[in-house]
Amino acid sequence: MHFACLPEAKIGIMTLPEEESKHCVRVLRMEVGTAFKITNGSGKIFDAVMQEAHPKKAVVALSNPEKGYDFWSFKLCIAIAPTKNNDRLEWFLEKATEIGIDEIFLFHSFHSERRQVKPERLQKVLVAALKQSLKSRLPKIHDLQSFNQFVKQDFQGRKFIAWIDGGVTDLLANTYKKGENCLVLIGPEGDFSPEEVALAQINGFETVSLGQARLRTETAALVACHSLQLINQMK
Amino acid sequence: MHFACLPEAKIGIMTLPEEESKHCVRVLRMEVGTAFKITNGSGKIFDAVMQEAHPKKAVVALSNPEKGYDFWSFKLCIAIAPTKNNDRLEWFLEKATEIGIDEIFLFHSFHSERRQVKPERLQKVLVAALKQSLKSRLPKIHDLQSFNQFVKQDFQGRKFIAWIDGGVTDLLANTYKKGENCLVLIGPEGDFSPEEVALAQINGFETVSLGQARLRTETAALVACHSLQLINQMK
Repeated sequence: MHFACLPEAKIGIMTLPEEESKHCVRVLRMEVGTAFKITNGSGKIFDAVMQEAHPKKAVVALSNPEKGYDFWSFKLCIAIAPTKNNDRLEWFLEKATEIGIDEIFLFHSFHSERRQVKPERLQKVLVAALKQSLKSRLPKIHDLQSFNQFVKQDFQGRKFIAWIDGGVTDLLANTYKKGENCLVLIGPEGDFSPEEVALAQINGFETVSLGQARLRTETAALVACHSLQLINQMK
Repeated sequence: MHFACLPEAKIGIMTLPEEESKHCVRVLRMEVGTAFKITNGSGKIFDAVMQEAHPKKAVVALSNPEKGYDFWSFKLCIAIAPTKNNDRLEWFLEKATEIGIDEIFLFHSFHSERRQVKPERLQKVLVAALKQSLKSRLPKIHDLQSFNQFVKQDFQGRKFIAWIDGGVTDLLANTYKKGENCLVLIGPEGDFSPEEVALAQINGFETVSLGQARLRTETAALVACHSLQLINQMK
């Protein structure tokens, strides 16, 4: 079953924006009468039927909104320093969307090699992964900000910072308790500086380990995301 | 600390093969006297010092072999149907090596879209990930074979098949017990056929779910790998 995304989706006849029209008509070769699904990215999935297969402004009929399957009883947020190689950050966004994540924060810190991202490009990766994994809730990605600014923000839930160089051995999965809202900070290729870890601790972050393995930044972020989802699914 | 891989490593003076020489001398710009590490890919890590920084046949002095940190008390094997897009399989191999895996089996099945792989290319991905994550044990990757042939092989441990379409709800992480040797089968983009699942069951495979999320083939394989490593690290 094909999936499209239309944030303003509601019951009735609607016109798809140009990019989504092109994807449905040119790439997926939908014709008049093709049935598919449309998510609004905010938890609802509609039945859709193609009415006018126009490659720039396709017209569709939407009905029967249902709640998506991708709801969980806690909030899962990851803050990550963008990787030097942009593909690796995009890979994390795709995989985290598949596995399930609520919010992504981006920050640059002392050892960051990348201090700029293209928000539109990252948004596209999230939407593509949302559609591919038939989810109804688009993860929210926040604008890049400095680490020092970021760690001072309020967050209702457990706050962790994954630190490699500090000899931390408390495993995230052993410290985190099922059902808790959670935010995990993942540092850049050169790790956090000791001053940054101290600042995070002053602001309520607990240092944790993601295990013995030495992981790349994007792998560490995904391991954190999957650990939290897994613990919440386990008996 | 830089890392090189030399399967025949032993204490004394040795010459690196051409590719590894080029990497050390041209890419990493090692000079005479540069200290680094060499793994034999079988659990040992040596101290190395560059003696002749030749870009095709570098000469190094090896000493002080130590056991790597990447040993665990169970066997973790994943069998995966190569993905249509080769990059996705390679991505899985890189990430699984970082997280920790013992053996990878490749099979083609009824819904497989790819029936050929380049073993040398896959081996290179494993070696690069081994060096990057400072591991001492190179995962073993087996030649591509047919699903029907593969499922009849002996395996000492729990055998699972991750099945999406069968309505299976037993989570791998709830079924698997810490310390058990384990083999998990991950199907191609079009999933396993019911006949294939039946054949696997006759051969002792238990059907399991990897959770509610709809995952791509390579994501499912990584989720299985990480679930098993995590359970074995948790209290």
